[in-house]
Amino acid sequence: MPGNHRFLEACRRRPVDRTPVWFMRQAGRIFPEFRALRERYDFVTLMQHPDLCAEITVMPVERLGVDAAILFADIMTPLAPMGVRYRIEQGVGPVVDEPIRQRRDVERLRRFDPREELSHVLEAVRLVRRALDGRVPLIGFAGAPFTLACYLIEGRPTREFTRARALMYREPELWHALMDVLADVVLAYLRAQVEAGAQAVQLFDSWVGGLGPLDYREFVLPYSRRIFAGLADTGVPRIHFGTGTAALLPLMAEAGPDVVGVDWRVELDRAWEAIGPDLGIQGNLDPAVLLGPFERVEERALDVLRRAGGRDGHIFNLGHGVLPDTPVDHLRRLVELVHGVTERR
Amino acid sequence: MPGNHRFLEACRRRPVDRTPVWFMRQAGRIFPEFRALRERYDFVTLMQHPDLCAEITVMPVERLGVDAAILFADIMTPLAPMGVRYRIEQGVGPVVDEPIRQRRDVERLRRFDPREELSHVLEAVRLVRRALDGRVPLIGFAGAPFTLACYLIEGRPTREFTRARALMYREPELWHALMDVLADVVLAYLRAQVEAGAQAVQLFDSWVGGLGPLDYREFVLPYSRRIFAGLADTGVPRIHFGTGTAALLPLMAEAGPDVVGVDWRVELDRAWEAIGPDLGIQGNLDPAVLLGPFERVEERALDVLRRAGGRDGHIFNLGHGVLPDTPVDHLRRLVELVHGVTERR
Repeated sequence: MPGNHRFLEACRRRPVDRTPVWFMRQAGRIFPEFRALRERYDFVTLMQHPDLCAEITVMPVERLGVDAAILFADIMTPLAPMGVRYRIEQGVGPVVDEPIRQRRDVERLRRFDPREELSHVLEAVRLVRRALDGRVPLIGFAGAPFTLACYLIEGRPTREFTRARALMYREPELWHALMDVLADVVLAYLRAQVEAGAQAVQLFDSWVGGLGPLDYREFVLPYSRRIFAGLADTGVPRIHFGTGTAALLPLMAEAGPDVVGVDWRVELDRAWEAIGPDLGIQGNLDPAVLLGPFERVEERALDVLRRAGGRDGHIFNLGHGVLPDTPVDHLRRLVELVHGVTERR
Repeated sequence: MPGNHRFLEACRRRPVDRTPVWFMRQAGRIFPEFRALRERYDFVTLMQHPDLCAEITVMPVERLGVDAAILFADIMTPLAPMGVRYRIEQGVGPVVDEPIRQRRDVERLRRFDPREELSHVLEAVRLVRRALDGRVPLIGFAGAPFTLACYLIEGRPTREFTRARALMYREPELWHALMDVLADVVLAYLRAQVEAGAQAVQLFDSWVGGLGPLDYREFVLPYSRRIFAGLADTGVPRIHFGTGTAALLPLMAEAGPDVVGVDWRVELDRAWEAIGPDLGIQGNLDPAVLLGPFERVEERALDVLRRAGGRDGHIFNLGHGVLPDTPVDHLRRLVELVHGVTERR
């Protein structure tokens, strides 16, 4: 099997033989093999084992036929070496022991060298590249400063990040100091992933849709821009993803990625208009559709493809991560469907 | 003091002497008098007392100088007479004892006559009208079928309503049966409020922004439309509000309200373009801004007013409810600010 480069080609808005497909959260919980691993290891232990992370990363490539692998890692990973203590609470998500409340808390956060302190993640990157052996490219990723800042300030996942937004307005200098250190850490982490072999990177600003455009411009954009600019010389495609971003898309495009990932709450054609024709677009099937019958999946997937209109630069994906009860077979058939209807000879 | 009709006039897109202002969740938790009441009565007991609900409803009119009162009631109120048992859990919100799982659960839901089974709410409406004595109009309200359906299916507030969306796709007939009974109940409840004296109504579809446009059109729009159409003969202005609705606004306008309320995640001028010039617009200052210094509040409020551009049909409001720690004085000064800068002689 020759190397499949359609994902990287699409990121660069070049013609491809079929629209590439991958799924956020494709690695992990949907596979019985993963659930078996989870019975033997807790999440934190799993994350410490590069061989297991690599195995989990490669699984969907073989089982689903997707056109890219994405590193199996946790969005919170770079926070631990910064000095943040957190735990994963069942049914809640990450819970930070001492949320950021004042300047002292920000001053305690450490910049660090990911080649030393996250060497297990980088080792996983190398193992994945070896296991993939050029079949499909590997995407590295990191949570964006805003989303990480929300975790740090709120202490746990919340609906509207009110405390984080309040801190922005009450203590803008503290906010900027926090975003400054997070941007440096995220940039160094992503650069290290690329050095270790990641062939594209995705910056997940999952929660940024909680902000209005004025706030995004003032409190977030400078940091996203710094990260994308700081990756420019690596030459790898840079993807910027968030949810609930219908009104933020032009600003996310301004941040300087090559591709913008959009969620299911906005029509793909309108989203592409908003980000402009110079960028690629990734998305945007509602992951909840995959919990229904395949006829519904097909109907909605075809709608996404119709809105993409066969233009170069579309990467098919979900509008957010694969949900836990998603049938593996639906995902496999979805990959086939997208490849089948977009085949160009 | 003569009657202040600027809120109703603005709903009808007629010229007003000043831009009217009111705040979602203006009645209640921000006032020390309310917190004192809450020490004596739990939430459910409070809701059973029309005299206390009326007192709480009128409080912000006197204390903040807003141009409308909104009935102090709970979004879950119409569910109890339908046969739904729920409790308010501290720090969580409403938790439903037996969430909707199957057809039998929907078939058990009762339509009812609000004049009989919610007479205490209607009595509160009458008491408020008497207490206001024509000073400002009273807005009635109800949660919209989609948002109520989410509570009923998820059983508690969630981030993305995955279970509710999954039910839509898996069992569309069950979904439509649920929405059908909810739409009937909500319409009857709002009509009863108008009969009792409410001079405008707001349909809160707080969570509808979790849906993409295709889903909104198929699974929600028919029911919102039925409610607005069913209120047309009352002659009172009808407001339709949701959060995270940037991509849904044209469809929400299609549902047939007189005014669309928008949250802070979209710029007011773009939102008005999306809903079209024939409707009024309500919004949309980020409530979290009020947790910061007043200079920031002023800057952002002026931005909202600039985007409204002095056009007839703008009602100033927040982009969502007043947050618990909001300084009362900020709200009072904000009303003065909006009235001051929009004064037309």
